[in-house]
Amino acid sequence: MNAKSGGALFIVGLGPGPERWLVPEASDVLAQADALIGYKPYTDRVPERAGLERFPTDNRVEISRAIHALELAQAGRKVAVVSGGDAGVFGMAAAVFEAMESGDPIWRTLDIRVIPGVSAVMAAAARLGAPLGHDFCVLSLSDNLKPWEVIARRLRAAAEGDFVIALYNPASKARPRQIFDAFDLLREHKDGATPVAFARAVGRPDQRLLVTDLAKADPGLVDMATLVLIGSSETRFIARPEGDPWLLTPRSYGVGR
Amino acid sequence: MNAKSGGALFIVGLGPGPERWLVPEASDVLAQADALIGYKPYTDRVPERAGLERFPTDNRVEISRAIHALELAQAGRKVAVVSGGDAGVFGMAAAVFEAMESGDPIWRTLDIRVIPGVSAVMAAAARLGAPLGHDFCVLSLSDNLKPWEVIARRLRAAAEGDFVIALYNPASKARPRQIFDAFDLLREHKDGATPVAFARAVGRPDQRLLVTDLAKADPGLVDMATLVLIGSSETRFIARPEGDPWLLTPRSYGVGR
Repeated sequence: MNAKSGGALFIVGLGPGPERWLVPEASDVLAQADALIGYKPYTDRVPERAGLERFPTDNRVEISRAIHALELAQAGRKVAVVSGGDAGVFGMAAAVFEAMESGDPIWRTLDIRVIPGVSAVMAAAARLGAPLGHDFCVLSLSDNLKPWEVIARRLRAAAEGDFVIALYNPASKARPRQIFDAFDLLREHKDGATPVAFARAVGRPDQRLLVTDLAKADPGLVDMATLVLIGSSETRFIARPEGDPWLLTPRSYGVGR
Repeated sequence: MNAKSGGALFIVGLGPGPERWLVPEASDVLAQADALIGYKPYTDRVPERAGLERFPTDNRVEISRAIHALELAQAGRKVAVVSGGDAGVFGMAAAVFEAMESGDPIWRTLDIRVIPGVSAVMAAAARLGAPLGHDFCVLSLSDNLKPWEVIARRLRAAAEGDFVIALYNPASKARPRQIFDAFDLLREHKDGATPVAFARAVGRPDQRLLVTDLAKADPGLVDMATLVLIGSSETRFIARPEGDPWLLTPRSYGVGR
């Protein structure tokens, strides 16, 4: 037995916010869908349209949202599940496949397509210059779904490997301390002069960029909408006559300096 | 003294290949530019247009290409420098800022905008399911610009941190051995059952996906157009009645299993 024919599930990353960073394939599938599912701030970014039924939900109900999406697709609907940024990076893609893994085996026969998007780290890097010119790590600082020891182990490994480090979900009202703990840990392992950037709401009207260094960075300025970047030992500032310096992580490492 | 007014430098990621993954902002600046600079396979992807002068170059001349772009922008031209994928990830952004750092100070006053794009790792992940549902690292395996010891140290750190690992530039005719050495190293540190994917030319007509595990993976199948993904200890397969299994790295880590 197969899922009802005609149904499809699109898992769509809406990008960091502005329309200009939404890939055409995402616009196309949003125009085809007859059901829209996601955390309300994301579904609100998709224009109202006749024939598009909307199912906005609260935060932190990813699995029930994913199950709902799979059920609708199985029933023959064309469903778009939306995330901010790239749906594959701490977005809804993992929730959908988790729901599939433990759910009705018929869901494995569904027509499922993940649409890639621009993730927050790419948008932040673009505004800052070229901080990702070399190897980097992407970590979520939320310990809702993993113990703090795992986060600490990964931060130490990222420092040991001298990767540029991008931190997602660095702080929320429920977890204001992690970002302080993360900076304490990184300061033990990395030079205080290491460039740091706080890139908040990049591409949106309330965008705010702060470029500083690891010694001076104040984690109290970080909120849930902030992408935190910490350089490698090779990351440096390029001063400008006006405005913040650019950030550069050169393509070469320890070669010819 | 400032740079000649009117000039601008756009550093543009063209995405992994298909038009459907090119962000509208990239299309917009490509339509405004009067000079196009890049490695020829990338400039070839931008349609011919009256008023757009083209400067295709060979591979491995990133810095001279960047200097040329900065000079043209300084002279008042609207210049687009193009990379594949995201220009910030092993693309032309770092080369331009390196050239700026050691070049004419006037270049620091230029109007420079980096346009983010969809990087290969996002496109590969989208096709494979949700392999980036949790923390990950992105490494270039090219040792043209860094010693192998740095690569090896980072691979060990990535294994120690149990990150999902994405490898760019895994092999070329000039360096066929690195990917074998990388797999040898990773096999010492990670379980043989760890899911591995080779995602070649994702989104293009010659796309080829291979899903396997670390013990069975044959690095001889990897070429320069391949994005190599190696799972964390939590990454797993979701079998399908037809076709390759999906890959999933769940959002939780060591919680409630």
